[in-house]
Amino acid sequence: MIEDLRSLLGGERVLTEPAVLAARSRDSWPLRLVQAAIGAESAHLPLCVVRPASTEDVAAVLRFAAAKAVPVVPYGGGSGVLGGAAPSTASIVLELGSLDGILELDEQNLTVRVQAGMVLGSLEAWLKERGYTTGHYPQSIGIAQVGGLIATRSAGQFSTRYGNIEDVVLDLEAVLPDGSVVRVSNEPRRSSGPDLRHLFFGCEGALGVVTAATLRIFPLPASRRLAAYAIPSMRHGLALLRDVMRDGWRPAVARLHDPIEAARSYGAAVQAGECILLLLSEGPAGYAELESAALSRQVAGIEGARPLGPDPVVTWLEHRNDVREFYRYVASGVLVDTIDVAARWSVVADLYDAALADLRASVPELMIASAHASHCYAQGTNLYFIVAAQPPRHAEGVERVYWSIWTSLMRVTQAHGGTISHHHGIGKARARWLSSELGSAYPLLRRIKRALDPPGVMNPGTLLPEDDQQP
Amino acid sequence: MIEDLRSLLGGERVLTEPAVLAARSRDSWPLRLVQAAIGAESAHLPLCVVRPASTEDVAAVLRFAAAKAVPVVPYGGGSGVLGGAAPSTASIVLELGSLDGILELDEQNLTVRVQAGMVLGSLEAWLKERGYTTGHYPQSIGIAQVGGLIATRSAGQFSTRYGNIEDVVLDLEAVLPDGSVVRVSNEPRRSSGPDLRHLFFGCEGALGVVTAATLRIFPLPASRRLAAYAIPSMRHGLALLRDVMRDGWRPAVARLHDPIEAARSYGAAVQAGECILLLLSEGPAGYAELESAALSRQVAGIEGARPLGPDPVVTWLEHRNDVREFYRYVASGVLVDTIDVAARWSVVADLYDAALADLRASVPELMIASAHASHCYAQGTNLYFIVAAQPPRHAEGVERVYWSIWTSLMRVTQAHGGTISHHHGIGKARARWLSSELGSAYPLLRRIKRALDPPGVMNPGTLLPEDDQQP
Repeated sequence: MIEDLRSLLGGERVLTEPAVLAARSRDSWPLRLVQAAIGAESAHLPLCVVRPASTEDVAAVLRFAAAKAVPVVPYGGGSGVLGGAAPSTASIVLELGSLDGILELDEQNLTVRVQAGMVLGSLEAWLKERGYTTGHYPQSIGIAQVGGLIATRSAGQFSTRYGNIEDVVLDLEAVLPDGSVVRVSNEPRRSSGPDLRHLFFGCEGALGVVTAATLRIFPLPASRRLAAYAIPSMRHGLALLRDVMRDGWRPAVARLHDPIEAARSYGAAVQAGECILLLLSEGPAGYAELESAALSRQVAGIEGARPLGPDPVVTWLEHRNDVREFYRYVASGVLVDTIDVAARWSVVADLYDAALADLRASVPELMIASAHASHCYAQGTNLYFIVAAQPPRHAEGVERVYWSIWTSLMRVTQAHGGTISHHHGIGKARARWLSSELGSAYPLLRRIKRALDPPGVMNPGTLLPEDDQQP
Repeated sequence: MIEDLRSLLGGERVLTEPAVLAARSRDSWPLRLVQAAIGAESAHLPLCVVRPASTEDVAAVLRFAAAKAVPVVPYGGGSGVLGGAAPSTASIVLELGSLDGILELDEQNLTVRVQAGMVLGSLEAWLKERGYTTGHYPQSIGIAQVGGLIATRSAGQFSTRYGNIEDVVLDLEAVLPDGSVVRVSNEPRRSSGPDLRHLFFGCEGALGVVTAATLRIFPLPASRRLAAYAIPSMRHGLALLRDVMRDGWRPAVARLHDPIEAARSYGAAVQAGECILLLLSEGPAGYAELESAALSRQVAGIEGARPLGPDPVVTWLEHRNDVREFYRYVASGVLVDTIDVAARWSVVADLYDAALADLRASVPELMIASAHASHCYAQGTNLYFIVAAQPPRHAEGVERVYWSIWTSLMRVTQAHGGTISHHHGIGKARARWLSSELGSAYPLLRRIKRALDPPGVMNPGTLLPEDDQQP
């Protein structure tokens, strides 16, 4: 089979070196990272890693895999934390990183077209030199690729103003599981049947492989204002964010960190028990000043809230993508995980309280748990939990503690009517909860999967749980 | 079969009276309206009209239709101008208007849940009494139903600020062609696999029937400013709108009417050859003033532009949904049609010129043709053509002139890389162009159709052309 693939793609594009296979046997899934750190690796080695040089190469690999019924796992930057790109069985890993070209910058229509393997941070740096931005800044910006961000329904740190990946991507090219290439567009906006781009936002490689995309870009904003505030409680802060959104403001950044995170990262600015609210307004000339002043007045209405000036936001901007601490903990055998959920405003404060209480009650190995809200909508917001626990130093112990954390958070989120995933996706970690998340829409997703991938070879076990792969 | 349906739904819910069948044999498709007006009707009478009283009734009808392989045509307000709800063959017409309940108003999370047969104008009036709006105001607001607006990917007159129907609807319930009921949500925002709501926005009844939806609502805005300007040419006006969007402004209304429309509706304000630009800014306190002042400065940069004060916008607000003139012309045998396309900024002025020139050259029966741009994006805008022609007074003559108008506009739009439909949908009128509109995505749509509607009974000939209904 390896020889067949080599004759299809060229020998140098099909890798079987043990180090390459090992590196592509996992992504940034903490479960596997901790197991590897304590010498209790349980990842599956891929059969081979292929590096397509073109959309046609991707199509050739998918046609081959469908014909031979061999699983294929698309692999982007490997920044996913849910095991979505970790092969669950002997698979071809399809590494997209060689498809990293910028195809076209269109300054008149404010778009840039790129191949799916383009690292978003590299694209942003290139755009910034020319006075533009995509407005999309996930924490993984330095390694995540455009195709992976599409496949997982990414959200960026400035999403409250700029929207999420489905707002950023106007047009995309994808290879379907049978090897056919489709290009789907909604540009500038269409009413020509269902907007089929959405089959690929969040498909996690289970319905096809994104190979190129047209992204909207923005000129760098004319105005920007930063402001931080100490807020007496999460409940006060969440009510404030709801009111801000209700009034029609859209601060690019609106982050409410709970007292644990406030003390950990902004201890010099806040007092014990206080939350911190980071606000960044930007837009056309005069807009940031107007919005910032309005938000300042709204904060002033909260008894016990205090202005902290812009410095905490500056600190956050500088350190926001630093994940070295995560890797240090994980390397020492500590399970650190980030679990993003979302809920309506009416329940989100209760969900915050209940989730932390349940974690403390049901996970004896828990070291710390905290959360922030950072992506606001008129209807609700996300909660981004950061959880650390000290599991026993063997594979099963890590599994047990890992799943006890997830079971607690998913159960409490669903009990409050929230969604189990705001922007990280489903991967393998959440697949067992997808059926209850989607309810009556779950069989519809399975029908679409069977229609597009009858042999069930596309990323088995990711998104749809493994026992649901069969027609 | 009628008896079977009566035993399923109750006798009074299955109608076969000739007047009812005749009324439901067409929607607002000008082709059929003009044919009917000159006594050359060519519509197909439905087999019967059913009026489901519940989602379960809709499911029962679809199960019945699938089992008997009888076509089903969902029928909302009948405001569609493309024949999308006009049966192409002996069909069951599924009239949704009895499903018109308001299910829940959630003021804390700013949502309202309604059944699909709710007339949007009635909902808006009900919301306005309580201080809210959906921000969605299509011209058909007085008759169009929520389900129909979803099924055709509606845009409202304030879309530049509030977005289109896919931004308005957070969660929907639909009955699939096999009778199964699904509820699909993206609330407040999810990363749980593909956002399957999008299978139903624009499905035009070909993939299922929407039965309920949760819409976002907004408190009535705190600030509003109106301003109109005379603009020397469409090219100047389109460049201005591009710059406004580029800077990050989002005027709720930004309508640029060409000299023909300006003279027709605002003749007292403009001089011959001038365009008129209508702007309406609204938002939180202070926002409308800031945006309106910025836009005023931008207009001042155009040589020959003149401020006209707010009155033309007030006039537009008062008369914007008055379609009596359309019906008067159509009743007299004149073909009047509204044809909405869209394109990138870089080509839209050329498209405007070329489209009018081609209509004049290729449609000898043309009386008048004009256009306005009214839904702006950072990447481009729509062009809404209004065309009148005097066909011969017989069925074939009307057909010939009708299709010559459409062929001209669709051909020129596609030659400029535009989309053939901004917000009216495809219906039957545009179905022959859907394959070239979607390109490589067309076979994907057909696969989805076959997966969900194997017998091909859902609204045959609408969206997908008739010869594409078979598996």
